[in-house]
Amino acid sequence: MANAPLSRRTFLHLVGAFGGSTAVYRAAVGMGLLESTHTARPDIAPLRTRDRKSVLILGAGISGLAAAYELSRKGYDVQVIEASHRAGGRNLTLRGGDLVDEAEFPQTCEFDRDPDLYFNAGPARIPGHHASLLEYCKELEIRLAPFINENRNAWVQDDAMFGGRPVRNREYIADSRGFVAELLAKTVRPDSFGAAFGNRDYQQLLEYLRQFGELDSRFKYVSSSRAGYATHDYTNPPAFKQPLNASELLRSGFIYLMSFSELDDQSAMMMEPVGGMDRIVTAFMAKVGHLVKLNSPVESIRLGAAGVDVRYRHAGNTLDAHADFCLTCIPMHLLGRIEHNFPKEYADALTAVPHGKLFKIGLQMKQRFWESEGIYGGISWTLQDIMQLWYPAHGIHRQKGVMLGAYTFSDEVAEKFARLPPAQRTALAIQQGEKIHPGYGRHVESSISIAWHRMNHMFGCPVQWSEPLQSQCFKTLQSPAGNHYLIGDQMSYHPGWQEGALHSAFRAIADIDQRVRASAA
Amino acid sequence: MANAPLSRRTFLHLVGAFGGSTAVYRAAVGMGLLESTHTARPDIAPLRTRDRKSVLILGAGISGLAAAYELSRKGYDVQVIEASHRAGGRNLTLRGGDLVDEAEFPQTCEFDRDPDLYFNAGPARIPGHHASLLEYCKELEIRLAPFINENRNAWVQDDAMFGGRPVRNREYIADSRGFVAELLAKTVRPDSFGAAFGNRDYQQLLEYLRQFGELDSRFKYVSSSRAGYATHDYTNPPAFKQPLNASELLRSGFIYLMSFSELDDQSAMMMEPVGGMDRIVTAFMAKVGHLVKLNSPVESIRLGAAGVDVRYRHAGNTLDAHADFCLTCIPMHLLGRIEHNFPKEYADALTAVPHGKLFKIGLQMKQRFWESEGIYGGISWTLQDIMQLWYPAHGIHRQKGVMLGAYTFSDEVAEKFARLPPAQRTALAIQQGEKIHPGYGRHVESSISIAWHRMNHMFGCPVQWSEPLQSQCFKTLQSPAGNHYLIGDQMSYHPGWQEGALHSAFRAIADIDQRVRASAA
Repeated sequence: MANAPLSRRTFLHLVGAFGGSTAVYRAAVGMGLLESTHTARPDIAPLRTRDRKSVLILGAGISGLAAAYELSRKGYDVQVIEASHRAGGRNLTLRGGDLVDEAEFPQTCEFDRDPDLYFNAGPARIPGHHASLLEYCKELEIRLAPFINENRNAWVQDDAMFGGRPVRNREYIADSRGFVAELLAKTVRPDSFGAAFGNRDYQQLLEYLRQFGELDSRFKYVSSSRAGYATHDYTNPPAFKQPLNASELLRSGFIYLMSFSELDDQSAMMMEPVGGMDRIVTAFMAKVGHLVKLNSPVESIRLGAAGVDVRYRHAGNTLDAHADFCLTCIPMHLLGRIEHNFPKEYADALTAVPHGKLFKIGLQMKQRFWESEGIYGGISWTLQDIMQLWYPAHGIHRQKGVMLGAYTFSDEVAEKFARLPPAQRTALAIQQGEKIHPGYGRHVESSISIAWHRMNHMFGCPVQWSEPLQSQCFKTLQSPAGNHYLIGDQMSYHPGWQEGALHSAFRAIADIDQRVRASAA
Repeated sequence: MANAPLSRRTFLHLVGAFGGSTAVYRAAVGMGLLESTHTARPDIAPLRTRDRKSVLILGAGISGLAAAYELSRKGYDVQVIEASHRAGGRNLTLRGGDLVDEAEFPQTCEFDRDPDLYFNAGPARIPGHHASLLEYCKELEIRLAPFINENRNAWVQDDAMFGGRPVRNREYIADSRGFVAELLAKTVRPDSFGAAFGNRDYQQLLEYLRQFGELDSRFKYVSSSRAGYATHDYTNPPAFKQPLNASELLRSGFIYLMSFSELDDQSAMMMEPVGGMDRIVTAFMAKVGHLVKLNSPVESIRLGAAGVDVRYRHAGNTLDAHADFCLTCIPMHLLGRIEHNFPKEYADALTAVPHGKLFKIGLQMKQRFWESEGIYGGISWTLQDIMQLWYPAHGIHRQKGVMLGAYTFSDEVAEKFARLPPAQRTALAIQQGEKIHPGYGRHVESSISIAWHRMNHMFGCPVQWSEPLQSQCFKTLQSPAGNHYLIGDQMSYHPGWQEGALHSAFRAIADIDQRVRASAA
């Protein structure tokens, strides 16, 4: 009952052709069709009392916290040393009263205190196949809700097309697909692909194009309900929109961005913790918070025969700590500048890998004006500096909401924003947002911006592995230097994602576990 | 920080090419770029006390309830007569203890009593452009959450491909797109489209195909992260999957179903009320429940000079009611069989339009087994009778969940299920579900099925307007017969959707309002 007539006809045809036949039951057992998503969380052995082992964890990012959680509950003596005033690393949710510890431009978030008014300044979404992170969410009882990347009601805006006028994502996608499908249907011939491609294949390809582009019976793209209606009051026949100018559509650089929600880690269904991504940090801290020392920047790391010695500052004092093992999720380029006695190859690798620049801005809006445009979540895209506008899919129909007003990770543009004082960043974001939502600026009540590459104790995000660097340095840094392990999303093939951070921690603690077992045996 | 490297490169390129230029601010005012979604809710005039008007509403479906709400708060005397034991019509959420009033096979739902264990047996999703329904959700303070139609981690299964083995939706889509894009990139030539299509257009088209199919630099589809990885432990280089056999992919009838989430009313972002679709019914009933008389089947409707006379049964008695106006959302084919004195053309039209058959089954599962497969919501598709499996995107990581185990609306297949007693329906649904999730059946704890075309007071769903019937009968039925108005989704160009039902009610009450104003003047 909830399918448009056009699709129903397709379905009915299909059901007649395929589904109506007597389906023979075949036992599925043994067909090997189950493709589970696995967690890599190691089952490390509990320490026997006489095998007392200590671990220092430098950095209370997600990898550090997970390592602390896993090791401490297996009997390891764990201490976490964190330079910042807070735990979580880049897992940072900003609420009213929170400090953004950016060098030069420290800010205090002035959002209203309200469960729906927060800004995930770091990671903001979890794909369904990030099994390790999801396993922690389950174990630590972190409530999850769907996160929306794609919204066909949202806007795409490009100064290069339609005079800068934004168009609905659904119109943009449906019309460009219709146009491309029509062009291609016109072009392909039964003999286009050689003898291996028979006439039946050809017919199927045409049919694929028709479905893909919503072409008519003569393979023309006339108009499409997928693009939305020009008028539709539901009690009169609807009027279709005229397709957008095809040449302009195809020429817009924008067309390439439309594959965003095809990406492995960005395609539906995505999730987010209810109340903010840092629910994960809070949950870990409820388990290991008593082991975490904040405001404690590390001054030196010395590998020795009997473990690792760490010197750090805390409350005006210089303190020393020693442990059998040390796990570090400090960003590698900062770690490289700390006093240490790492092997040369290891030390050189630490500073060889560049780090990117990333800027975001969160805006508390007086009204959820986007909802009156039929937008209840997802992303509007623009080729202006701000790149993306995100609308919260939580707190729907409440009066206020916090939206993302810029998300940019080209070095140049991120730096352009970062150089501006916060008020000017907001002004620029508003100026550009106005092209998508006229009157946008008057809804802005409060703003908070974050330049990750200027955040204290961070100064760069994310790590930018290239293939040459990866083959040159990754193995070096992934192997322990004595009893020191480098962890974090930086030491994964999935930088910028918490799942990568977790796997790096898993790898390190599995190795420690193995070494401890070997020495105990 | 939450984007895969591949896409980031694309972005960086784009930002360099477009976003870095100095964006000139242009006033957006007057550009006409705001395309709001409008509600059609009429602002009817409050009745003056001396203009006392009465309205009988036959049927407490969504259109009837909305009409009762709108009219009663403007001073009209409203009474709602509902044949069934409950209000809401097809807006039906089933929970433990609820009766499914199906002719021949009445069932009682035996789900656990739990806020997350419910089954939306009728409408289950709301698109962001269904502005009238959403306006009521806001006004009546119905909490909304995202609803997920598309999940690339879910399965597609077709006996005609891969020996019936299910494949991940992401693999199916990415590989079929890659294959089609490669085929087409091979085929198109700069001169394929005539002179109007220049070389730059050609290059853009190639680039579009590359992005669309994730082709390599030579426009070959080698493999794609979009399809998911064969192995990826995040701390070693990931291994791509081998693409699925292209010919088998394209030959599967399934490829046509992949346009489902392109549909106007099915594309992201979709929503659902938290706790069940019938929160809408409950909210309306909180306003107008005192005006609703349940268990009251109508026996006759007589149009007179002074209004409408209705005879109905209630608690063993025959009762008469009279009102100035009458709004009816009784399914038209049932209305046509009630004793009445409608004009012949109107009466003939009532029974001229066929009604479809629709079957759904809800399954309470002991474990949310789908979550261990990386599926947290959305739909798996099959060309078996059951057509769809839906996974709830609420109550994530709780122990149990209610999923949809069949959703079929071909007359033939819906009837096949409907003819079976409930236990056999469940057995058939399980048998087919096993092909997608081996071991499926052992998770089933309780089931509830619904054949809408066998539900008492309904006997068909949805109305099946054809274009000839629409031009022949729609206007007749849309115009009042005397003071009698036919409403409901059946009287909209959007049958099967609550938005259509609301608009039909709006149209009728706006007409009544106008007539009342005219007679008062």
